[in-house]
Amino acid sequence: MIELLTSETPNGWKVSIMLEELGVPYKVTPISLTDRVQKEDWYVALNPNGRIPTLIDHDAGDFAIFESGAILIYLAEKFSRFLPTDTKGRSRVIQWLMWQMSALGPMMGQATVFNRYFEEKLPKVIDRYVRESRRLFEVMDTTLAGHDYLAGDYSIADIACFPWVRGHDWAQVDMGGLENLQRWFDRIAARPAVQRGLLVPAPPKPEEMAEKTIQQGKNILA
Amino acid sequence: MIELLTSETPNGWKVSIMLEELGVPYKVTPISLTDRVQKEDWYVALNPNGRIPTLIDHDAGDFAIFESGAILIYLAEKFSRFLPTDTKGRSRVIQWLMWQMSALGPMMGQATVFNRYFEEKLPKVIDRYVRESRRLFEVMDTTLAGHDYLAGDYSIADIACFPWVRGHDWAQVDMGGLENLQRWFDRIAARPAVQRGLLVPAPPKPEEMAEKTIQQGKNILA
Repeated sequence: MIELLTSETPNGWKVSIMLEELGVPYKVTPISLTDRVQKEDWYVALNPNGRIPTLIDHDAGDFAIFESGAILIYLAEKFSRFLPTDTKGRSRVIQWLMWQMSALGPMMGQATVFNRYFEEKLPKVIDRYVRESRRLFEVMDTTLAGHDYLAGDYSIADIACFPWVRGHDWAQVDMGGLENLQRWFDRIAARPAVQRGLLVPAPPKPEEMAEKTIQQGKNILA
Repeated sequence: MIELLTSETPNGWKVSIMLEELGVPYKVTPISLTDRVQKEDWYVALNPNGRIPTLIDHDAGDFAIFESGAILIYLAEKFSRFLPTDTKGRSRVIQWLMWQMSALGPMMGQATVFNRYFEEKLPKVIDRYVRESRRLFEVMDTTLAGHDYLAGDYSIADIACFPWVRGHDWAQVDMGGLENLQRWFDRIAARPAVQRGLLVPAPPKPEEMAEKTIQQGKNILA
């Protein structure tokens, strides 16, 4: 059995979407970021960085994996899906996965922090991260011209980028005018496995959503 | 022949160190960040994100690779070195490589931006990134207790983290009191291939270093 320790964030959804796409059984252990469970000793023993998600492969001697990008590669290789096996195709997917990990995720993360959670509104800092995130959206849009997916067929690169692009409103990054990106987004959003993955772990009620998310964000900064 | 398009930054040195460790011949094409060559059309055709480094494998149909983490995996697999082949050992290295790409690099990058390049000194923002970078150093220090390297033998995870840790003074992140991290750092810094890699491309003269680096940083923000 595979166990996913996660919370309702883009990095968590990457892995729940992947598991739903694979169609393999898995157990979900919700980690409350509000209660800072990700900093508890038992959790840090599994994930030295104290962040979500963590995957435990109980069929492989309880092997624990941290960093969502590493989890996606592990699952892709274990089940031989969503990552080509030829050298170039495989590298192209890993290039875009790395780009998500090093650029799209961190920059949209900072845009969210300074738009939503930080103790002061700092317009120049917000502008830096919103502009950089928009630039990254434009990089995707250019790449997606004439292509359905980022790197050949639908892959872990698309799965990694999708939940971050989905959060553009929350991060206050404009998606307007990027038709290739919008079509890619709509194509992925229509996948039943993606829709199921976004419900893992169970989302808070709509009326609690904003408050809970802000409290989580503040705790992440603490 | 392998060609490395690079500049004197931590992400560039990761790849030059790797190539020196491999001991394979390669051609260096310096990319002037001061002149924004990384944004020129011919370069963006190779690297859609417009950043350094880029690797071109001329022995594989001029295959171009962007994102330093993806380049390290490509080279490790091409030459069967610095990345284990067993599932768990390999995943452990990829986990720490992803951690460098998603956490250590971006957070130290932001610490550097707000300490060195940003138009205003914003103490609370500087504090955010310096504290987070220090926390990441502590994660490494804890992991390195009783271990020479981050994930088993010397690997692309160590190669990826080393140039960022080396930049701690420039980013103004304190390394004090982290003895495991310091020993790891000294161990890697003593490697001749690492010393050679840090000279690629040729560094600016000491008296030009600060000004050139600041100008590059300002251009990156522009």
